[in-house]
Amino acid sequence: MNTEKTIRAMARKAKAAARVLALTTAAEKNKALKSMAQALLENGARILSENQKDVAASQKAQHPQALVDRLTLTDKRIRGMVDCLKETAALKDPVGDVIETFTRPNGLKIEKVRVPLGLIGIIYEARPNVTSDCVGLCLKSGNAVILKGGKEALFSNQAIFNVLKEALRQTRIPVDVIQMIASTDRQAVQALLKCRDEVDLIIPRGGEGLIRFVSEHSLIPVIKHYKGVCHTYVSDRADIHMAHQICFNAKVQRPGVCNAMETMLVHKDIAGRFLPVMLGALMKAGVEIRGCPFTRRIVKGVKPAREEDWGEEYLDLILSVKVVSSVNEAIDHINTYGSHHSDAIVTSDRNEARQFLQGVDSACVYSNASTRFTDGYEFGFGAEIGISTDKLHARGPMALQELTTYKYIILGKGQIRG
Amino acid sequence: MNTEKTIRAMARKAKAAARVLALTTAAEKNKALKSMAQALLENGARILSENQKDVAASQKAQHPQALVDRLTLTDKRIRGMVDCLKETAALKDPVGDVIETFTRPNGLKIEKVRVPLGLIGIIYEARPNVTSDCVGLCLKSGNAVILKGGKEALFSNQAIFNVLKEALRQTRIPVDVIQMIASTDRQAVQALLKCRDEVDLIIPRGGEGLIRFVSEHSLIPVIKHYKGVCHTYVSDRADIHMAHQICFNAKVQRPGVCNAMETMLVHKDIAGRFLPVMLGALMKAGVEIRGCPFTRRIVKGVKPAREEDWGEEYLDLILSVKVVSSVNEAIDHINTYGSHHSDAIVTSDRNEARQFLQGVDSACVYSNASTRFTDGYEFGFGAEIGISTDKLHARGPMALQELTTYKYIILGKGQIRG
Repeated sequence: MNTEKTIRAMARKAKAAARVLALTTAAEKNKALKSMAQALLENGARILSENQKDVAASQKAQHPQALVDRLTLTDKRIRGMVDCLKETAALKDPVGDVIETFTRPNGLKIEKVRVPLGLIGIIYEARPNVTSDCVGLCLKSGNAVILKGGKEALFSNQAIFNVLKEALRQTRIPVDVIQMIASTDRQAVQALLKCRDEVDLIIPRGGEGLIRFVSEHSLIPVIKHYKGVCHTYVSDRADIHMAHQICFNAKVQRPGVCNAMETMLVHKDIAGRFLPVMLGALMKAGVEIRGCPFTRRIVKGVKPAREEDWGEEYLDLILSVKVVSSVNEAIDHINTYGSHHSDAIVTSDRNEARQFLQGVDSACVYSNASTRFTDGYEFGFGAEIGISTDKLHARGPMALQELTTYKYIILGKGQIRG
Repeated sequence: MNTEKTIRAMARKAKAAARVLALTTAAEKNKALKSMAQALLENGARILSENQKDVAASQKAQHPQALVDRLTLTDKRIRGMVDCLKETAALKDPVGDVIETFTRPNGLKIEKVRVPLGLIGIIYEARPNVTSDCVGLCLKSGNAVILKGGKEALFSNQAIFNVLKEALRQTRIPVDVIQMIASTDRQAVQALLKCRDEVDLIIPRGGEGLIRFVSEHSLIPVIKHYKGVCHTYVSDRADIHMAHQICFNAKVQRPGVCNAMETMLVHKDIAGRFLPVMLGALMKAGVEIRGCPFTRRIVKGVKPAREEDWGEEYLDLILSVKVVSSVNEAIDHINTYGSHHSDAIVTSDRNEARQFLQGVDSACVYSNASTRFTDGYEFGFGAEIGISTDKLHARGPMALQELTTYKYIILGKGQIRG
């Protein structure tokens, strides 16, 4: 109960400050972002030493190595945070953009104008860089933000947050626009998810468990940045060399990210020519293959894929492979087992490509390119707050523009309704 | 448990049919809408006689007259449903619109294309016309729909739904794209709200209780069409005659709708000249005035406004009136007590208008016009599914375009990520 009161009071303060931030000029916001970048650079040693406490505790608790890796800050990673803030400052401010303007027969002039959402709650896990990246994106888009990071990164997050807050104090933006929940229990998250009068959007970033918990408990709209079970379908009309390059890139270049390929679908008429070379190259690169019976008849050393494999996000050097009879079977498979993230077809037949691109119900659908391009920078949007696997409001890379909403401004000369 | 299974099976069927509908041409969809309109016209007698059963039951149960009114169908109301379907057929199909297209330095061509959401669940109360209006809008925007109307309108809704379904059977669109939950208990609604793998959006239409219930129980994104606590602020720099016309229209022209004015704010320096004439005219029109102490000193016969009055949607000939000291006080009052729907300023000072339009956090903000214009038809969008008071995805009048999402289509020539 006390937690609820504390969090609600924090949300109220942030929302009041958000109203001031919404009217702040781009120049003032950019100045704040640059001061924050400078402050991170100057306070690197302090941040690294606080981070060491988290890393030591995590090692002592024998957390998985992948978690410890994500948690660990280095000079290079701090430099990355600094660069992200600077790049965000350089991006165009979406606030105030006139999306559309039209005049009605009665003379009413209607403008559809981009405005900040208000107050955003970000719930994340053990990546300390999320703290400064999200502060930068929210501030630039005119939004106040409440951060709730994972308990494993508590010292690191607080150190980063304090540095950012000190920098903000030197500007005309109210410091209350950034808030951090320091409590480590889930009660605090639950309290935040109830502040529906203050918080306009919740963004969970992390594993499946966190995202499920947040979407099941939130009374506030949530945009999920869920898993990426991405597919590449190699058509019988594919350029085999191109298919090889694309599939290898999608699986191997960086297997631990959400836009990496997890399942490869191959047309039966090309499987005999394509699979032996392709799977040979992947296995040589250390990829474990889990195949359908057809795949296993063509290539030796392939483990059998179980039903669960088709929906799994490995985030690792593992690939499930299925031979299919048609592009329709590929589309159905993707719509059934995929996560609506990024899926590709390799084909030289334009009509077939169009059919795939229309039929697959995913945020990003590719023809003849690697799914690895689903990314704010690669799309030219700059830093992103995540890749939305939802359909409402934001789909795919979610950058500055997607952190805004719109309002209708109607200019009259005394019009009344008849 | 059985209810859950039944509803999920219904949702699965609808979702499968939605994939076919998403690829259906505008011509085919328009043909279906016109057939439906024709069928409603031809089956008017059957619909009216089923409606009579609902009306009789409602009268017997001594439901409030307003509910019985909303429930009652007439030839004219059926004609209204027919017209709505025909007008929806005449609107431009948003599906397939290319919102943006850009080419990246590596040659990737990216298209942001409008696509249907998929499957929409609509939960509403006792207005039978919602059944056909929503079917029309969902179908035209390429979405399948599951309808769950109020139990008071069960016979009417089923009659309308059956007529629409018969008409659909004559087209190439799978009939499963429209579904109706005939069960009258809340269990069925709860089951629907759990179908997160099948249903893409829930739209509740009705009173506060229904909307609260739906948003608290839904695992699916919800866009709320909540109450309209709309304000008009009369500045000390207002044209008094214009202010009089606008306020009278906003309150009296149709008091029972969400864009009618519920609170009038008046600057203290104009209150002495403006309020006596204004309130006199309103009272003469039968409006009950509930005023702040300042208002009550200026005009006799005004009841005192209680704190609860500031947040209340009367939907009736009642108006709360408050005298304020500045445009900032007006903005703060609206942001505190309003419902983020529609709010207006009357002023001849452009800078003051700008300040109000920027500062008020509502879907539609007006300068020198009546709030009554917040409406899909008045904005030129055509029929609307409601007025969203949420900020995510759709804000203000929610018409065809807002019933779609987008996907990114990326066309490559073998690009891989370096």
